[in-house]
Amino acid sequence: MAAVVNIQQIKEVLKNIDPVEVIIPLIEEGFVAYSQGRVVVPPVGEMIFEDPPGDVHIKYGYIKGDDYYVIKIASGFYEKARIGRATGHGLMLLFSQKNGELVCILQDEAYLTNIRTAAAGATAAKYLAPQKVRRVGIFGAGIQGRMQLGYLRFVREFKDVIVWGINSQELEAYKRDMAPLGFSIQTTLYGEEIASNCSVIITCTPSKKPLLQADQIRRGTHITAVGADTPEKQELDAAILKKANRVVVDSISQCQLRGETFHALQQGLVKKGDLVELGAVITNKNLQRAADDEITVCDLTGVAVQDIQISKAIWQALREKV
Amino acid sequence: MAAVVNIQQIKEVLKNIDPVEVIIPLIEEGFVAYSQGRVVVPPVGEMIFEDPPGDVHIKYGYIKGDDYYVIKIASGFYEKARIGRATGHGLMLLFSQKNGELVCILQDEAYLTNIRTAAAGATAAKYLAPQKVRRVGIFGAGIQGRMQLGYLRFVREFKDVIVWGINSQELEAYKRDMAPLGFSIQTTLYGEEIASNCSVIITCTPSKKPLLQADQIRRGTHITAVGADTPEKQELDAAILKKANRVVVDSISQCQLRGETFHALQQGLVKKGDLVELGAVITNKNLQRAADDEITVCDLTGVAVQDIQISKAIWQALREKV
Repeated sequence: MAAVVNIQQIKEVLKNIDPVEVIIPLIEEGFVAYSQGRVVVPPVGEMIFEDPPGDVHIKYGYIKGDDYYVIKIASGFYEKARIGRATGHGLMLLFSQKNGELVCILQDEAYLTNIRTAAAGATAAKYLAPQKVRRVGIFGAGIQGRMQLGYLRFVREFKDVIVWGINSQELEAYKRDMAPLGFSIQTTLYGEEIASNCSVIITCTPSKKPLLQADQIRRGTHITAVGADTPEKQELDAAILKKANRVVVDSISQCQLRGETFHALQQGLVKKGDLVELGAVITNKNLQRAADDEITVCDLTGVAVQDIQISKAIWQALREKV
Repeated sequence: MAAVVNIQQIKEVLKNIDPVEVIIPLIEEGFVAYSQGRVVVPPVGEMIFEDPPGDVHIKYGYIKGDDYYVIKIASGFYEKARIGRATGHGLMLLFSQKNGELVCILQDEAYLTNIRTAAAGATAAKYLAPQKVRRVGIFGAGIQGRMQLGYLRFVREFKDVIVWGINSQELEAYKRDMAPLGFSIQTTLYGEEIASNCSVIITCTPSKKPLLQADQIRRGTHITAVGADTPEKQELDAAILKKANRVVVDSISQCQLRGETFHALQQGLVKKGDLVELGAVITNKNLQRAADDEITVCDLTGVAVQDIQISKAIWQALREKV
């Protein structure tokens, strides 16, 4: 019988998994496998509902020669917000690649997607952010804005943070939640304030227009763009990618169709040949930040190999406990 | 929390679900909805494995305005046969169409696919087979060959059965299993014997070449072809479809690409315009068998709406028990 693991159990298990020793290395290993062509990721399955409006996405894939394959089902039913309930819903199914059998069902309610996204952000910063971080800027005072900050601390030392949000209410909540973890947190409603004060910037909003302009970006800045994962969404002025010394993406094929890179390619500001995959950066020192004054951008749109790796991390920890 | 239901529990629940009152009507309702364009069925997702060889198919869909949507995951890992284990593996996930949440996980190991296929066979016979059945012929002495016979009894009265198989061993096992249920069972290794003695024939083999020839088929015969669900598989000489007074299919769009109809269309023996969907037959008396001497063929390739309906049947019965 396959194990069925609910969100409370997943959070409990996560407490015993070291992000530095286990999660980030697994995510790195996943990106490397992906960039070496060792990951099979079929097209995303999609179902659209009209009444009530909703959508379901099915993402799945496997690393060749690995023990498992993963199917992730994620839905958004947006009218639930009206009754104060989470609109997103999700689960991951881990199967054996040796015999096809279901190994475990992770009813993670999209929580593991948040974790693997934060771990990808940390991976990007590990190889691309300046070693000495002046101040960290976060766009987006939601869950991902919190998680990215938490994970960034595993790869860089810093204390000072400026957070941008859409209103002072959410900013105060962010400050209340995150200050006790040892951060010194300022808040702002103005993007320029982040651009001129921060050497590491992480954008995690659902914005459809740029929050940062190219002329605001100072030398020595690293930006990880997490929010835009569709062709419509955009957090960075596309000219920032042209200004950058390095443009790194999680998936060249996917970033041609969505995210920041899509806009920059469309406008002819970068060429496909300028793009480097994070999986290649991890294994090749020449592709990592080479000087303090470089501007680097990493565009993350989310790839199924991250789901594969985070599911495996949970299952390995669960199995050890049993 | 979603309910997790294993194969033993599913078999237990099925004992309390009346096939005549519940399962066949739900399957009929599903075909009707499908043929009326009220079912959304996105393209099937597929993952292929090389080492060990295996495949995974993800089928999903929903009836518009219904309470649920269903995702079915089915795999075949063929090396498992070597160690004497079932090569197929499967589960169905039932979600709410109102809020996207997972309702239940049916770890049915493909058993519900067998049931819904048998119920589709019964539905075809209900509207297309002669009222008086002389003798029933079954091609294929496997699980589906057993189930089709069991379900046929819900829509027609008969006792005499001839079963065709590939060796006398499997035929003896079939006879041993099915005779105690009240059937008088003969076995044969020759298809002609079935053609010349049976007025209802059900083919449920994985054959890649015809088991029945057009000149063998007598007037007044109904054939339901269940086995061929890929472009390669074929159980009927394509000329049988030309000879038939009625050619009924579960899905016109799908049968253009796979199953018996695919071969007959390819060879120009039938035209797309000759095809009628089972869902239309159910609601239109003019499309059903009109005379005792008609030859009728129903080609079933399997559509996701059957999975939707059988999952709902199980869940409804489970919920009533709780």
